[in-house]
Amino acid sequence: MQNFEQFLLDNLPTAQSIHPTYERALQDMLKAGGKRFRPALLLGVVKAYNPLMLESANHAALAIEFLHTYSLIHDDLPAMDDSPLRRGHPTLHVSFDEVTAILAGDALNTYAFEFLSNAPFSDEIRVKLIRELASNGGLGGMVLGQAIDCYFENKPLKIEEIKILHTNKTAKLIAASLKMGALIVGREDMAEQLYDFGIKLGLLFQIQDDILDVTQSSDEAGKLTNNDEEKNSFVTILGLKTAMQEANLLADELNSEMCNFDESLSGELSPLLTKYINRHKE
Amino acid sequence: MQNFEQFLLDNLPTAQSIHPTYERALQDMLKAGGKRFRPALLLGVVKAYNPLMLESANHAALAIEFLHTYSLIHDDLPAMDDSPLRRGHPTLHVSFDEVTAILAGDALNTYAFEFLSNAPFSDEIRVKLIRELASNGGLGGMVLGQAIDCYFENKPLKIEEIKILHTNKTAKLIAASLKMGALIVGREDMAEQLYDFGIKLGLLFQIQDDILDVTQSSDEAGKLTNNDEEKNSFVTILGLKTAMQEANLLADELNSEMCNFDESLSGELSPLLTKYINRHKE
Repeated sequence: MQNFEQFLLDNLPTAQSIHPTYERALQDMLKAGGKRFRPALLLGVVKAYNPLMLESANHAALAIEFLHTYSLIHDDLPAMDDSPLRRGHPTLHVSFDEVTAILAGDALNTYAFEFLSNAPFSDEIRVKLIRELASNGGLGGMVLGQAIDCYFENKPLKIEEIKILHTNKTAKLIAASLKMGALIVGREDMAEQLYDFGIKLGLLFQIQDDILDVTQSSDEAGKLTNNDEEKNSFVTILGLKTAMQEANLLADELNSEMCNFDESLSGELSPLLTKYINRHKE
Repeated sequence: MQNFEQFLLDNLPTAQSIHPTYERALQDMLKAGGKRFRPALLLGVVKAYNPLMLESANHAALAIEFLHTYSLIHDDLPAMDDSPLRRGHPTLHVSFDEVTAILAGDALNTYAFEFLSNAPFSDEIRVKLIRELASNGGLGGMVLGQAIDCYFENKPLKIEEIKILHTNKTAKLIAASLKMGALIVGREDMAEQLYDFGIKLGLLFQIQDDILDVTQSSDEAGKLTNNDEEKNSFVTILGLKTAMQEANLLADELNSEMCNFDESLSGELSPLLTKYINRHKE
């Protein structure tokens, strides 16, 4: 079985030697590393139920990574977060230019669906995967979350609103990654349970980020911390103590749900997730 | 049968009252009009071969319009063409802001594929349509063309290179619109012929635009003309006389191919295309 990282390198998008600069831009952020967390979730579910399908599942995992990578490229644009660095590399609008960053993002967004339309599954599964990725990673999912985040940046949100924000911005794509794994192996009976688990997981990550932002030094976090005072965060809205309680509650729920998964699924997801689920307790 | 314009109004993307500003931005450029040329091509082919499928075909036509509209929104961005007006309306980054324009474009790009994944066709047809739209409207098609155009804006191109530029930037999506019509009605035997016809049609349009840009006044054209002196255009590369010969040659080929289509197809496409094909002769 080819591992995901090698599969990615073997399936980088190209511009058929027509436009080398554009091709480098398309590949740059994909090759820059990253945790490949969403692919790992999808592949974990597939491995639990049908390891023989891992090779094909790499196609769906890479499609998610294409979509996730486009979103990072566009989030970093000058008009958005204006970030000079991502995954330890200069962002695309810095190493190339803004036009190239916009276009490379646009191209990777569409390419996720082209890649799925050619993936080695039945047409029925292809359509289900495309629907799942598009509905969670697009207009009524990730992009909606980003739009709420940008629009309400300097306006205080209520706790229910910030949950809607992060459910859309982060949690839905994580949830879709798990569900897509279930769809690939024909375990529709597990799809919604895994999706709900993924939504909680995504929310927990955001609460943890907000907590660590005020409790960790920049050195510990490996990035600038204490920079969210003006931002809508779970800590600014709930206070540190209540945010911590909320995180503990979610972590307990997730740990217990993970134990209740059947043995093979639990065996795949626990090693991957336990350290993340409990990281705010350290 | 519901006409396309009404179908579009009935199927505008929404943000489920979560974020009204974002929703207005998603709909603004779709409601601003436009020729709906690509939908008309797809629907023309469907009407020629199976008018009963026109209602379903509206879904595919609208998916193309979503993708085309996203590309206009992003083309108009400050980092790209920095256009204040489109379809007679202020562009999104003017009436809203740059962030909203980037996000609305991203959302419509992904939504084209979500919409196709739910369109009333078999999964086999859905996958074919998604593959066609993504491969022509994305990384190795429209976005590649835009990337060539932006990158080589101030560098002289050879005639073969400018053909590659416009084949990708404009012609492939026009060609895909015709081909998608053939795929919907199960006329695979016509798919490649219609695709090739569309590529020539797209190239002719660009040569005509370049010709009219130097021969028409701004008043006649309804937009700023004579502004391409520095740009790579068929006229700056070939000269006006040779560009005109090239346009005549392509127009003759297209007119004769259209006559050779079977009667029903020719009957649908001629009224739609004849005036366009011959517009540089006026």
